[in-house]
Amino acid sequence: MTAPSTPITSTLSDEQKEITGKALQETLVDLIDLSLIAKQAHWNVVGAQFRSVHLELDELVTVAREFTDAAAERATAIGVSPDGRAETVAKTAATKGFGEGWTKDADVVVSIVENLKAVIAGLRERIDVTEDADPVTQDLLIGFASKLEQLHWMWQAQVA
Amino acid sequence: MTAPSTPITSTLSDEQKEITGKALQETLVDLIDLSLIAKQAHWNVVGAQFRSVHLELDELVTVAREFTDAAAERATAIGVSPDGRAETVAKTAATKGFGEGWTKDADVVVSIVENLKAVIAGLRERIDVTEDADPVTQDLLIGFASKLEQLHWMWQAQVA
Amino acid sequence: MTAPSTPITSTLSDEQKEITGKALQETLVDLIDLSLIAKQAHWNVVGAQFRSVHLELDELVTVAREFTDAAAERATAIGVSPDGRAETVAKTAATKGFGEGWTKDADVVVSIVENLKAVIAGLRERIDVTEDADPVTQDLLIGFASKLEQLHWMWQAQVA
Amino acid sequence: MTAPSTPITSTLSDEQKEITGKALQETLVDLIDLSLIAKQAHWNVVGAQFRSVHLELDELVTVAREFTDAAAERATAIGVSPDGRAETVAKTAATKGFGEGWTKDADVVVSIVENLKAVIAGLRERIDVTEDADPVTQDLLIGFASKLEQLHWMWQAQVA
Amino acid sequence: MTAPSTPITSTLSDEQKEITGKALQETLVDLIDLSLIAKQAHWNVVGAQFRSVHLELDELVTVAREFTDAAAERATAIGVSPDGRAETVAKTAATKGFGEGWTKDADVVVSIVENLKAVIAGLRERIDVTEDADPVTQDLLIGFASKLEQLHWMWQAQVA
Amino acid sequence: MTAPSTPITSTLSDEQKEITGKALQETLVDLIDLSLIAKQAHWNVVGAQFRSVHLELDELVTVAREFTDAAAERATAIGVSPDGRAETVAKTAATKGFGEGWTKDADVVVSIVENLKAVIAGLRERIDVTEDADPVTQDLLIGFASKLEQLHWMWQAQVA
Amino acid sequence: MTAPSTPITSTLSDEQKEITGKALQETLVDLIDLSLIAKQAHWNVVGAQFRSVHLELDELVTVAREFTDAAAERATAIGVSPDGRAETVAKTAATKGFGEGWTKDADVVVSIVENLKAVIAGLRERIDVTEDADPVTQDLLIGFASKLEQLHWMWQAQVA
Amino acid sequence: MTAPSTPITSTLSDEQKEITGKALQETLVDLIDLSLIAKQAHWNVVGAQFRSVHLELDELVTVAREFTDAAAERATAIGVSPDGRAETVAKTAATKGFGEGWTKDADVVVSIVENLKAVIAGLRERIDVTEDADPVTQDLLIGFASKLEQLHWMWQAQVA
Amino acid sequence: MTAPSTPITSTLSDEQKEITGKALQETLVDLIDLSLIAKQAHWNVVGAQFRSVHLELDELVTVAREFTDAAAERATAIGVSPDGRAETVAKTAATKGFGEGWTKDADVVVSIVENLKAVIAGLRERIDVTEDADPVTQDLLIGFASKLEQLHWMWQAQVA
Amino acid sequence: MTAPSTPITSTLSDEQKEITGKALQETLVDLIDLSLIAKQAHWNVVGAQFRSVHLELDELVTVAREFTDAAAERATAIGVSPDGRAETVAKTAATKGFGEGWTKDADVVVSIVENLKAVIAGLRERIDVTEDADPVTQDLLIGFASKLEQLHWMWQAQVA
Amino acid sequence: MTAPSTPITSTLSDEQKEITGKALQETLVDLIDLSLIAKQAHWNVVGAQFRSVHLELDELVTVAREFTDAAAERATAIGVSPDGRAETVAKTAATKGFGEGWTKDADVVVSIVENLKAVIAGLRERIDVTEDADPVTQDLLIGFASKLEQLHWMWQAQVA
Amino acid sequence: MTAPSTPITSTLSDEQKEITGKALQETLVDLIDLSLIAKQAHWNVVGAQFRSVHLELDELVTVAREFTDAAAERATAIGVSPDGRAETVAKTAATKGFGEGWTKDADVVVSIVENLKAVIAGLRERIDVTEDADPVTQDLLIGFASKLEQLHWMWQAQVA
Repeated sequence: MTAPSTPITSTLSDEQKEITGKALQETLVDLIDLSLIAKQAHWNVVGAQFRSVHLELDELVTVAREFTDAAAERATAIGVSPDGRAETVAKTAATKGFGEGWTKDADVVVSIVENLKAVIAGLRERIDVTEDADPVTQDLLIGFASKLEQLHWMWQAQVA
Repeated sequence: MTAPSTPITSTLSDEQKEITGKALQETLVDLIDLSLIAKQAHWNVVGAQFRSVHLELDELVTVAREFTDAAAERATAIGVSPDGRAETVAKTAATKGFGEGWTKDADVVVSIVENLKAVIAGLRERIDVTEDADPVTQDLLIGFASKLEQLHWMWQAQVA
Repeated sequence: MTAPSTPITSTLSDEQKEITGKALQETLVDLIDLSLIAKQAHWNVVGAQFRSVHLELDELVTVAREFTDAAAERATAIGVSPDGRAETVAKTAATKGFGEGWTKDADVVVSIVENLKAVIAGLRERIDVTEDADPVTQDLLIGFASKLEQLHWMWQAQVA
Repeated sequence: MTAPSTPITSTLSDEQKEITGKALQETLVDLIDLSLIAKQAHWNVVGAQFRSVHLELDELVTVAREFTDAAAERATAIGVSPDGRAETVAKTAATKGFGEGWTKDADVVVSIVENLKAVIAGLRERIDVTEDADPVTQDLLIGFASKLEQLHWMWQAQVA
Repeated sequence: MTAPSTPITSTLSDEQKEITGKALQETLVDLIDLSLIAKQAHWNVVGAQFRSVHLELDELVTVAREFTDAAAERATAIGVSPDGRAETVAKTAATKGFGEGWTKDADVVVSIVENLKAVIAGLRERIDVTEDADPVTQDLLIGFASKLEQLHWMWQAQVA
Repeated sequence: MTAPSTPITSTLSDEQKEITGKALQETLVDLIDLSLIAKQAHWNVVGAQFRSVHLELDELVTVAREFTDAAAERATAIGVSPDGRAETVAKTAATKGFGEGWTKDADVVVSIVENLKAVIAGLRERIDVTEDADPVTQDLLIGFASKLEQLHWMWQAQVA
Repeated sequence: MTAPSTPITSTLSDEQKEITGKALQETLVDLIDLSLIAKQAHWNVVGAQFRSVHLELDELVTVAREFTDAAAERATAIGVSPDGRAETVAKTAATKGFGEGWTKDADVVVSIVENLKAVIAGLRERIDVTEDADPVTQDLLIGFASKLEQLHWMWQAQVA
Repeated sequence: MTAPSTPITSTLSDEQKEITGKALQETLVDLIDLSLIAKQAHWNVVGAQFRSVHLELDELVTVAREFTDAAAERATAIGVSPDGRAETVAKTAATKGFGEGWTKDADVVVSIVENLKAVIAGLRERIDVTEDADPVTQDLLIGFASKLEQLHWMWQAQVA
Repeated sequence: MTAPSTPITSTLSDEQKEITGKALQETLVDLIDLSLIAKQAHWNVVGAQFRSVHLELDELVTVAREFTDAAAERATAIGVSPDGRAETVAKTAATKGFGEGWTKDADVVVSIVENLKAVIAGLRERIDVTEDADPVTQDLLIGFASKLEQLHWMWQAQVA
Repeated sequence: MTAPSTPITSTLSDEQKEITGKALQETLVDLIDLSLIAKQAHWNVVGAQFRSVHLELDELVTVAREFTDAAAERATAIGVSPDGRAETVAKTAATKGFGEGWTKDADVVVSIVENLKAVIAGLRERIDVTEDADPVTQDLLIGFASKLEQLHWMWQAQVA
Repeated sequence: MTAPSTPITSTLSDEQKEITGKALQETLVDLIDLSLIAKQAHWNVVGAQFRSVHLELDELVTVAREFTDAAAERATAIGVSPDGRAETVAKTAATKGFGEGWTKDADVVVSIVENLKAVIAGLRERIDVTEDADPVTQDLLIGFASKLEQLHWMWQAQVA
Repeated sequence: MTAPSTPITSTLSDEQKEITGKALQETLVDLIDLSLIAKQAHWNVVGAQFRSVHLELDELVTVAREFTDAAAERATAIGVSPDGRAETVAKTAATKGFGEGWTKDADVVVSIVENLKAVIAGLRERIDVTEDADPVTQDLLIGFASKLEQLHWMWQAQVA
């Protein structure tokens, strides 16, 4: 009762599918890790700005989780099996990570800005490579970049 | 501007705090991994029961995420810094994992039952050890077990 | 295509399962009968306090139905098949019943107080016997007792 | 402080009231038993279609409970005391009942189709007898039949 | 710029239209007056049951206003201009009216029961006369009677 | 069981109460009649602007009904029994009334502007007389005038 | 794996089923076409009343779609397979159609009145023929006629 | 009072308008037919997966209707009159249609997958041709393709 | 890090500020005590009217709490620090208090009427003294009096 | 018409009732005072963190008020009359109080942490003493401690 | 088709209308500018308090926009055409403006306090001049002052 | 405490940032002025279509305000300080303005069509220039054009 290796057909050519699938898989692990980092920060932040940062991090978690699902389900839509398991995330995400233990609010802000910057940089590259391969996927990634660049400004504004 | 190592005081004794903190940390990584496994299954399931299983998995994700937050914030409440980062989850979770690629619906159901069983077993042990250490934490773990055992029945009923 | 007699496995030992299953089955029939009694009273009450009692009875119905479902699904969660059929209820419920035909508001209040008292008495006993057998079930029964004792006060306050 | 035997006057003649009251009382017990049967099935169903059947049964419970209340309150509106107590239901309902213990999904579907068929048959007869006796009650019973025949199709479609 | 006397055509014959239009106009004034009487009682009731009766009267107002609109718009639908002006209501309504000034709760209940009885009696007659003239209007009047007879029971139950 | 003639005490002197009570009673009948006129127009309007005027009239009904209740309950609050029965309205309202039968949209607009003007004129006078007698009532009447003058503009703008 | 030709049993006799099924199939295609016509008008209307007519047409679409579903599901409930495919609608609907291209608002109103009139005429005939064949279906058709006759008045009032 | 043939001006050149208008008109008829096919399947499906497929089809109907409106209103926005009448749909839609009568669930799934594939193929072509003609329309079509390809995966996953 | 004694500037003169600040502080303690009294009665009421009085008291609590906040925040807005601590309330409130222990429903009603009367009397005086000092505060106090006099009527009506 | 001294019977023994009643009464006054202190701080806080602290204090008020009601109604449920009057609170609460006048944000945070610590300490003791006396009450107190310890962490995190 | 210069009649005398109209026009431009200033600050604020100030500014925008509409529509209600165009605002508003480019959070707070102070000062004057001219307008301006003085405190509290 | 001149870093090159920043600033002032013009028209429109146009203008205001915020926050996201102050809008917006005083409905429609046309023309140009500079911003502007061209059709349809 094992599933066939390619049960879902694609409207893309094999080459387009490979390029697009790779872009979506890379995006997927970055976004899952971003959501785990934001939650980790949400619990471990301390300092006078605790409440503000604590709440803002949960909004970032919500965004990251919603985009995660959209990226994974776009992969399935083009016939590519997404991999969002803990080990895959731990090994392949291009994020900057988050330190251990209780963390001061100002340090949290700096860390989140860096992680957002890393995720956005990846998205910008993939927006380029998917332009010809699949405009539908490109449109999705543009949407992710638009929102994450807005958040990038908001977090950065706090250290300005 | 690094944070002090123990910025949050506890109403528990050191011993109670150590026992309870360990129980919560173990619960935390199990629940995060359960949510990642359920999402992985949500995307990769195929078969005639696709829609039913796909929807049910998202309900499990919602439960696992809510309990994750409750476990982590109970740890903070007793002065213990929780660790829910991808690498920590990948290395320390006591779950059964989930296979690679597209997966038949019946196989998904079996895998979820096994993962739930593993998580519940851990909870049952921790309900015992926290009884004296911290009845507040015990009450939380009882609540987790109650819901996860209900889901265990529902998933198991599909293979009966 | 008949179902296996024990299709749902339990995290309890056989003895714990027997004790807990019995407690839940007894609770189930009491609560179903309580909901039928409250509906019967809801339709047959007459007197100056009609509207107040009529509305209050529907709140009791809602509580009884919600607890009924929770008790039955806890039984399934420990691998015990619940029985909530009309005949089983009629024969085994430990409630006090309700008289025939139109009933004066003051008589309704007295009857509801007595029925609540009987159901609570059963719950209090089962809270004791499930303490060791299954703390998860005990916690559920404590929740039922808490709400029903609140309603017991409210109905009793009307005859004070 | 016992209530008078006929505290509620009727806009119907004695004969109309007797015919209509009998039709409503018979409908009442059928509907209560239908709701108890559907709940029993909701808890005891097992098999690959578990989730779908489990959810669908709760929709049937909701319908049966809503119609139960409407039937009982129509009886009161014409001055007839309705009787919906467990023993009355157990002894007088014209439904087909439901077997003991865990039940396979396909068997549940067949049982529900049969119970719906029996309840609808009773309603169809009572729609005839109430046409002259009370068009208001007839209209109510037509509404019940309309919905239950829709559900009859939906459950039957699963075994087609 | 005066409007033509019959700008709205009817799907009924002239005779059917006359019978139905008369039934709807009579119903309209009864329902408007019922809503004004219920509001008058809502403001002037005094006594230990004040709050219960005060709230219940507003529910009656809501019902009466909703039915008023339905009756008037059914008249327009068959090409008959409805007349719901104060003077028409004051002169032609077949209700029982309501006394002047502050009124004891028990007296209010009796007055509402009598007014409901009068309005229902009119509806019952018009259900007969519209059966052949217009089944669509008959169905509407059956709906009004169904609800008002339910309220008649509820108000009457308070004096039982 | 008749009610005492003055069961509700007042925080106003007898003279203040008489002046204020008269102002509120006059306002009450004007507002009830305004709501009946607006409903009458709602049903009888014809012409190209039918839909717009039909909807706008229901907004006027909502406003008039809400103010009616506020005026009557302010009278009760100062110990004055309000009288909003059909005959009282028909005989004492200072509104301009509404013609019989189907009415062209432009005529409806003119009639509503005139009725609003009449009701506002009454309110303006009563705002003056209640200034010393009861600032609480004056504040209420100012609120009525504010909203009705806004509607007066909106209806008038349609004939500009 | 083809379906049996009559998988759904009926509570009607063969003759009743044939009469009722024909009435519902005719109603179904009329209502689907009415919804397509209203959408076509919704997009193509121009003129000073554009906004009012544009919005009103969407309300008609909503009504037509809701009734379409109710008619089709009543057919299935009596064991008759409904046919609402584009070609069937195009060939068998008894509506009046709608012209090509942009259309002035006044012309739209006239066209909608004519289409409503045609659909209502069909319903009135089917209300007669289903009275003996199936009162449940008759009740449904009466409900359709009631609402469509109300809309017929509202659209007609605009050309009065 | 006939409307001018081109009452709505366009921000596009004549050539751009012709290309874009054709793409939108083709999309419009495909989407209307998709919604009618999905409804037809919604009513005629039978088999063990009835409930799941029945519900899923209504979600497809909702999507198809929403996109239909967006496509038609984009046509109007560029000055092109859309044609969504039954006959136009029946004659020009590039969908695969749906068979007559009751249909087994597995056959329904296959048919929906084929219809989705056909509609997506048309969209993919039109995304290319509108890139230069009108990026606003292209963006709309990309959005349609994104959602329909997601649904294509979900339906296809059921036959995997 | 102690705060300056007057950190918030005022738009009032010193004299106006003193008069207005005193009026608001007196109002504040009266309203807090009213909310505590109403809660105390909510818990301790017994008698046949229990449910009605119990619910009505919570509505009074809601009103008192909302007004409390408005009074305190008006004080801050004019630069006056409000004092709503338990001891200040216990020592300075001009309410009538509430007896110890379980209390009969009729006694509760009388006590609430007296407390409302006392609070209203204070407000009426402060409406006078703030007229020149601060019309904004006066308007707020008029709003409090308006609502509390309505409640005064409703509670008093129950003993009429 | 004075109430009997013990109108509400208890399911507890006299000793259990005395222990549990004392625990609940002490909890009640602590929670009322906590809500008054939080409100006092809500109004008097100044400083750069004003908005964050101001909002967070209202969340604490909401929690304290909800727990207050639960504690008082648990007392009534075991037949003990709760006392939450201002003077009782002022004299018996074991909280730390709050200083007079405008208060800097950092001082507010420290004061709230201290008050929470005091209330939690009392709860921890009462969780012990009610374990044997009444597990239902113990469960309630565990729930209070769980939430207040979470808040204790959040407020404390701001001074870390 | 130009409009008449005074199409809306007024219930005020010419002198009253001139005074009131001037007060409302001045208020209108101040409020529009306040909303534009708050939005400008909302986008350009930077600093550690970014998030708190950013959110708080949008609440100010909401208030300013709501009051703008109320002021303009009060002008129309008394027959005066309001002027809220960009150039009029730029030339006549009595606000303090807002600097160019990115702005530190503390500077934003100071600027908003100054702008609020200026707007409130204007309102206080106009409350005086409208007392005799139009109490309805005065009541509106009192409402504006009440809310803006509350916000003035809240913003000022952040610099205390 | 003055802010640095470029506190927010950008993911764009300097040239891309300049081009994109200019496009967004131009869009911002156009949209703010469009919202002020629509509000001005909302207040000053008179004529038979008053209500329809008055309501439709508020929908335009809502759209313009939402897009204003999106444009300004996109500017901040790429590190450019947006300028939406009244004077900047008055001097640099490329809209067509709106005449003084009361305005006939037909004139309002023409003016809004012209203003929409001007704003859309600007957007179309900027969609071209941002294609290479920043696809994320281009996507945003395409979204604005899509909605405003839909509104352009709707307003234009009223003069067809």
